[in-house]
Amino acid sequence: MSQTTTIARFTTRDADFDARLDALLAWEGVSDHEISARVAEIIEAVRRRGDAALIEYTNRFDRLSATAMSELMIGAERLEAAFASIPAAQREALQQAAERIRIYHERQKPESWQYHEPDGTMLGQKVSALDRVGIYVPGGKAAYPSSVLMNALPAHVAGVREIVMVVPTPDGVVNELVLAAAHLAGVDRVFTLGGAQAVAALAYGTQSVPRVDKIVGPGNIYVATAKRAVFGQVGIDMIAGPSEILVVSDAGTDPDWLAMDLFSQAEHDEDAQAILVAWDAGHLEAVLASIERLLPTMEREAIIRESLARRGALILCDGPEQAVELINRIAPEHLELSVESPREMVEGVRHAGAIFMGRHTAEVLGDYCAGPNHVLPTSGTARFSSPLGVYDFQKRSSLIQCSPEGADTLGRTASVLARGESLTAHARSAENRLKR
Amino acid sequence: MSQTTTIARFTTRDADFDARLDALLAWEGVSDHEISARVAEIIEAVRRRGDAALIEYTNRFDRLSATAMSELMIGAERLEAAFASIPAAQREALQQAAERIRIYHERQKPESWQYHEPDGTMLGQKVSALDRVGIYVPGGKAAYPSSVLMNALPAHVAGVREIVMVVPTPDGVVNELVLAAAHLAGVDRVFTLGGAQAVAALAYGTQSVPRVDKIVGPGNIYVATAKRAVFGQVGIDMIAGPSEILVVSDAGTDPDWLAMDLFSQAEHDEDAQAILVAWDAGHLEAVLASIERLLPTMEREAIIRESLARRGALILCDGPEQAVELINRIAPEHLELSVESPREMVEGVRHAGAIFMGRHTAEVLGDYCAGPNHVLPTSGTARFSSPLGVYDFQKRSSLIQCSPEGADTLGRTASVLARGESLTAHARSAENRLKR
Repeated sequence: MSQTTTIARFTTRDADFDARLDALLAWEGVSDHEISARVAEIIEAVRRRGDAALIEYTNRFDRLSATAMSELMIGAERLEAAFASIPAAQREALQQAAERIRIYHERQKPESWQYHEPDGTMLGQKVSALDRVGIYVPGGKAAYPSSVLMNALPAHVAGVREIVMVVPTPDGVVNELVLAAAHLAGVDRVFTLGGAQAVAALAYGTQSVPRVDKIVGPGNIYVATAKRAVFGQVGIDMIAGPSEILVVSDAGTDPDWLAMDLFSQAEHDEDAQAILVAWDAGHLEAVLASIERLLPTMEREAIIRESLARRGALILCDGPEQAVELINRIAPEHLELSVESPREMVEGVRHAGAIFMGRHTAEVLGDYCAGPNHVLPTSGTARFSSPLGVYDFQKRSSLIQCSPEGADTLGRTASVLARGESLTAHARSAENRLKR
Repeated sequence: MSQTTTIARFTTRDADFDARLDALLAWEGVSDHEISARVAEIIEAVRRRGDAALIEYTNRFDRLSATAMSELMIGAERLEAAFASIPAAQREALQQAAERIRIYHERQKPESWQYHEPDGTMLGQKVSALDRVGIYVPGGKAAYPSSVLMNALPAHVAGVREIVMVVPTPDGVVNELVLAAAHLAGVDRVFTLGGAQAVAALAYGTQSVPRVDKIVGPGNIYVATAKRAVFGQVGIDMIAGPSEILVVSDAGTDPDWLAMDLFSQAEHDEDAQAILVAWDAGHLEAVLASIERLLPTMEREAIIRESLARRGALILCDGPEQAVELINRIAPEHLELSVESPREMVEGVRHAGAIFMGRHTAEVLGDYCAGPNHVLPTSGTARFSSPLGVYDFQKRSSLIQCSPEGADTLGRTASVLARGESLTAHARSAENRLKR
């Protein structure tokens, strides 16, 4: 195929297709030793010196001059004021989005359950919410109010008692939309902290920042490294990589629509990935022409160009079955099935974060207001992980209540197995409850 | 209270109770820099040199002299032969345990769901199994067949296509019961590998070991450190600490039973933790007398003594309500409610891995055959995590299919929010689907 500098183009019949696809998808999210050591030092300082260390790091990294933690807190009244002050159209759009997100996530709530066996023994599973969670919201150019809704609302639906948000405010710049979204999503407390120091504070607690049970939300490499380091002390959601989309087209969708769908992913940042798969070579040519025609009209043209050139691709495959194979191999964060019969194709899809079905379902609807979560597994991790959901803010406890008869039956089995493992206190504990 | 060297005793009214409890519970599972560096080196070698590195490390650490990977694999026939060769009583006990574990875990299978909105838009969630998982089974003295069942059966119930097990065989010693359990639990392949090298092989794949999507199962500090390091490349279950039990007694249970229940936890290893809480001082004295009388009769007396002395405690509290407060503060892996009305008390319990209700429900029944999983969150992580379950071997994909009307309604909301975030490609992608 002809090559262009705008975006890589290959076909599944290329001799080096496998290697090229692997290279395209490669993303090493793991941080280097220097960053790990730096983050370990920050965590240790926050554990040891608490608020004092937080203030020092925040002043240094965010160029502030705070002298007390009270200057790094935002109260409920300030959040409410932000909500009241934003334009009505934005307030209504946020409210509509929040309502839809809440309704979708209500469906995710699992029930506790129990069952009784004939001898009276009861087994079950009890679902309960986490007590307190921390939400990390990036500051600066990537501060998205939609992310506040997507992180906080599932926690709320889950029944979490207290939601603590951290958001850095470099140079003291506060994003009113983010504060408005925090108010709407029921965030209880906000600290204007960021980086590894914010993660450390949430994980271990300081004089002012309460220790949480789980930290969710995306962040830069320092935040990701810190989350990995505190995992175990607290729960974490996932280590997020750059955002990606895989669009599959059967050539029936307007090429201009597809070009814009790819741009919507590419405009996030230079590492974002936008891939289009189709089995009609002429259609791919048409999409390429749309890309080249529309690119100069985009506000974020430079970012989109860089992203498409570095990590984008147009891939010609043999047909729909091969497209499904590619989907499962890539395990994309966002999958847009721009085809006539998406339900058939979905049957074969095993690995994808969110699936946007049909020509009218632009991926961006999922970013804001369709209802499902926009925090999704990236970099192929949809092979083993799920969208952020209510289940991330709950956990289960097993329940076991033996009747005297059940203790006798189970005790005999346990005794044999325990003695097979040479654990005789185990065996005798069971044998104590045998019927004589 | 009087002190004894057998086990620490304190009351919630001690002036220094909070500090003493914190010290008792403290467990720093994080590995030091030296171990981290060593593990990083092993992972890098396995990624770079594959099987060759695996053979070298295995020969060195497990004192073997393998020359090819074929010597480090155990096939299906060998597993079946092990199952046939063990004593009939053990085989039947394993089968009974496996059947009960399977039945309990079937209840955990979530359903995919969808719903339609009035305008024809469909939203849903699709549940699918992981393709391939790796199960780490410790070798040597802590090689437990019950752990093979508890790790592999939920994966099987979830619909995982291939289950790969690794188990080190130091000095070439193979545990027949472990192999028999692997056969019974439907393990597809076994490699006699352990340590960080086994984790690296499962995470990245080698010429012989297939790359998996998730690694579960407990291991030593090298295994735990390696799991943390590969998290993101693959999924992992949790970072397990020492096993623990919290027993709450209302003084109505035979002190000898309670002593043996504490021993059953303490006999695991010297770091295991066994704590008894009660509000009847005389009852605690009686349990202490039982402990001292029964200790000399135990096969694993030395381990139990060390564990009780280092990490055990008898705690006198004011009453049942305060006991529940202690439970939620400790968030124990195993909670035994040896009380008359455990159902009332369970209502208030927010954090515990597994709850054993009533005098007849010895915790050890859950270790082997009650049905619920024995892989449970330790060291207070029940605050945010769950028992190993079917849900650990499945993941969800969001489904969104907009009708033309839905694309119009949602597109208008998305457009406002996208422009509020200055993401104009997002806005235009949504606007393309608006009705004109």
